[in-house]
Amino acid sequence: MKKTISFLLLSVSSLNFSMLSAQEAIWSSNDIISPEILQDNKVIFRIYNPTNQKVLLTGDFLEVSDVENMPKVQGSPLFVELKQTSDSVTYEYVSKPLKSELYSYSFFVNGIKVNDPSNVNLVRDVSSISNIFIVGDGKAELYKTQSIPHGTVSKRWYSSPSLNMERRMTVYTPPGYEESNKNYPVLYLLHGMGGDEDAWMTLGRATQILDNLIAQGKAEPMIVVMPNGNVIQEAAPGESSLGFYKPTMLLPKTMEGTMEETFPDIVSFVDNNYRTIKSKEGRAIAGLSMGGFHSMGISREYPDVFDYVGLFSAATLPSDNFYQKEAVKSTVYEDVNKKIEIQFTKNPRLYYIAIGKDDFLYQANQDYLNKIQGKSFVYIESEGGHTWRNWRDYLSDFVPRLFK
Amino acid sequence: MKKTISFLLLSVSSLNFSMLSAQEAIWSSNDIISPEILQDNKVIFRIYNPTNQKVLLTGDFLEVSDVENMPKVQGSPLFVELKQTSDSVTYEYVSKPLKSELYSYSFFVNGIKVNDPSNVNLVRDVSSISNIFIVGDGKAELYKTQSIPHGTVSKRWYSSPSLNMERRMTVYTPPGYEESNKNYPVLYLLHGMGGDEDAWMTLGRATQILDNLIAQGKAEPMIVVMPNGNVIQEAAPGESSLGFYKPTMLLPKTMEGTMEETFPDIVSFVDNNYRTIKSKEGRAIAGLSMGGFHSMGISREYPDVFDYVGLFSAATLPSDNFYQKEAVKSTVYEDVNKKIEIQFTKNPRLYYIAIGKDDFLYQANQDYLNKIQGKSFVYIESEGGHTWRNWRDYLSDFVPRLFK
Repeated sequence: MKKTISFLLLSVSSLNFSMLSAQEAIWSSNDIISPEILQDNKVIFRIYNPTNQKVLLTGDFLEVSDVENMPKVQGSPLFVELKQTSDSVTYEYVSKPLKSELYSYSFFVNGIKVNDPSNVNLVRDVSSISNIFIVGDGKAELYKTQSIPHGTVSKRWYSSPSLNMERRMTVYTPPGYEESNKNYPVLYLLHGMGGDEDAWMTLGRATQILDNLIAQGKAEPMIVVMPNGNVIQEAAPGESSLGFYKPTMLLPKTMEGTMEETFPDIVSFVDNNYRTIKSKEGRAIAGLSMGGFHSMGISREYPDVFDYVGLFSAATLPSDNFYQKEAVKSTVYEDVNKKIEIQFTKNPRLYYIAIGKDDFLYQANQDYLNKIQGKSFVYIESEGGHTWRNWRDYLSDFVPRLFK
Repeated sequence: MKKTISFLLLSVSSLNFSMLSAQEAIWSSNDIISPEILQDNKVIFRIYNPTNQKVLLTGDFLEVSDVENMPKVQGSPLFVELKQTSDSVTYEYVSKPLKSELYSYSFFVNGIKVNDPSNVNLVRDVSSISNIFIVGDGKAELYKTQSIPHGTVSKRWYSSPSLNMERRMTVYTPPGYEESNKNYPVLYLLHGMGGDEDAWMTLGRATQILDNLIAQGKAEPMIVVMPNGNVIQEAAPGESSLGFYKPTMLLPKTMEGTMEETFPDIVSFVDNNYRTIKSKEGRAIAGLSMGGFHSMGISREYPDVFDYVGLFSAATLPSDNFYQKEAVKSTVYEDVNKKIEIQFTKNPRLYYIAIGKDDFLYQANQDYLNKIQGKSFVYIESEGGHTWRNWRDYLSDFVPRLFK
C-alpha cells in the first residue's frame, strides 16, 4: 500500500512537472492571486516582480483622483504604480471600492504592456488584449455565468450567395430550444468597427446577459444571431483561411452598402436552419456603433422584416447619397428620408436609440433624433462614451423590451 | 462633396481614436508585425521597446544550439535575446527555418512574462497563456482553417443525473450534419489533467484537423464530443458559476472512478440529442494523458459501447484496486485484468496506443503493452514527450482509422 501511494505521488508530481515544463510555465508566482476582489469590492492587483521593475497598472476603473505623481495628458489612459509588499518580490495595488461592473486592465513593465500573468481571463478588442474581472453584487451579476439554465453557443458557417463566400456566424439558442418544437423570435446583433462575430460574446457578455434575463423571466427566450459585419471577412481574425494576422480597425467595404444589401442572405439562412418565427414581429436587429449604422440601414431598407430596432451609440451619419464615393454604387443610401418615412409608416413596435453624453457620436445622434422627430421611438441618454460598458448596459435594457 | 468627404474622414478618425482610447490601446507599436513568417520558414519576432529593456524569447521551437551565452539549466526552458534593430526602438530575433508545426512562445521583459503585444493569437494551458503561430507547408496545414466546408462547434450544457450537475461540453458536428438526415458516428475526445472541454479545440486544433481530414476524404464525417473530464467542474475555468479564478492542474476526483462511472450520462445525452449511430461500431473514445487513462477505463468498463479506443500518452497506471484510497470506493478499478480479457474477447475494431520516447509515462505504457501482449492493438512510438505537439499528431493519425 505504501508503495502504491508513493508511486501515485511520483506520477502526479512528474505529470505536473512535465506538463508545466512542456508549456514553459514554470513560475515562482504560481501562488499569486490577481486580481483579488475583497468583501468591500476593493480589488488587489498583484504581480511577481523579483527584479524590482517599475510596474504600472492601467484600467477602466481608474479615476483621475486615483492617480498620484503621474503625468496626466488629456485623453491619455490613467496609470497607477504597484508597490513592493513585505515579501519584497510581490508588488500590489489596492483599488478603492468599485461599483458592480466588468472592468478591463493591463500592466506596463517599463513601458511594455503585460497581461496579468495570474489572470487567464482575457479579451481581445481589435488588436489589443486586456485582462478582465467582474465586480458583482449589482448590475454585473448579469455578466456572470450563474447556476441557471444555459443556452447553446455555436460557431456556424453559412453560404452567402450574394457575397459568394462561406462565412462564420455566432448563434445563441436559448435554454430549451433543442428540446422543444416551438418557433423562436430572433435578435440579429451586430458588432462595431474592428469587431467580428465573436465580439458580442466576449466583450459584450451576450451569452450571460441572455441566460440571466431569460432565467429571471425578464426576457423572452430568443435566438441571437451575431454575424460578421465586415463583408470582406469570412470570419474573425485567426478563424478564416487568411490564417493568423494582426487585426486592424479599418477594413474596406464596411459602410458602403454591401452589408445592408447582402443581409437577406443571413436572414434567409437563419430562417431555413433554425425554428424561427418567420415574420416581422419575430425579428429584431440591433448593433453598436458601425453595427448601429448597419441596423439603421438594414431595418430601413427592409421595412417589412424587422419590428424591433436598436441603435447603440450608432454611427447615425448623414443621409442621402453619403457613402456614394466608392466604386460600389449602392442604392442603400439613396432616398434615405423617404425610406425613413416608409419605415415609420409601418409602425415598428420598437425603435430604440441609446447614446452616452460623452460619446463622440452624441451630436450625430442628436441630428438623427431631429430627423425622426415626431415618430415613435425610445431614446436613452446615458453617462459615458463609446464603450463596451455602455453597450452591455444597452443590451441589458433592450432585450427585455423585445417580442412581448 | 468636399464637405462630405472631410466629415467622413473626421468621423472615421475620431471613431478610431475614441475606440482605441476606450480600450486603452494607444500604441506606437501598432505597425509592428510579429511573428513574421518568411518564405524560407524563418520566423522574425519583434517587440516595440523604446526604453531598451532586456527582452528574452522562449518557445518550443528553440533548440540548445540556438542559445548563446545563456545559462542552461537542465530541464529549464531555453531563452534567446531580442536585439535592437536600426530604428533603435524595435527589437527582434530571427529564428532558423522551422519545420511545419504549431509553435508557442512568450517574451520575458526583465524576468516578467509578456505576451507578444503584436500577436493576438493566444492559448491557455492550465493557468499559463502563450502566443501561438503556425508554420505551414507541411503537416501543420492540418491545423489551419482552410477554404473548405467547416463543421459547427457548439458549447452546450447537459444534465448529468449521476453527478446531479448541469455541465458544459464542446460538440463538433461535421459539415453537412445540419442539412442531412443521416446518422453519424461519434468520437468522444477527452482532455488531460489541467484541461477542460475547451482544450482540444484550442491547443488541440481538433476543429481544423477534423475539417481538413474530412475534406481530404481521409476521415469519415463524424461528431466529436469533448466533455469536461474534471467531475467536480460544471465547465472550464471562467465559464461556470464559480466565476473567474486561477486554474490549477490538480483537482480532486479526477482519477478515482467517478468520471468512468458517470460517463454513460454523456453517451446517453449525445445519443438522445444528436443523430448518432447508437451502437458500438459507431462510437470511439480517445484521450490524452489523464484522458487516455479515462478512455482506457471507460472502454474497459463498458466493453459493448466503444469499438475504437485511442490512448494518447495515456496515464496507463497500474491495475487492480490502485485508486481505492479515496472515500469513493469505485468498482471501476476492481478486477481490471479480468475486464481487459472481456474487452478484448469482444474484438474492438481498433485499440490504439501512442506514446513518445521521451514521455515520463513511456515506461508505464511499456508495462501496459506487456499486460495486453497477444491482444490485437496498434502501437505508435513517436519522438518527443508529453506535449500537445504529439497529441495533435496522434489525433491526425487516429481519426482516419475510425468508422471504416
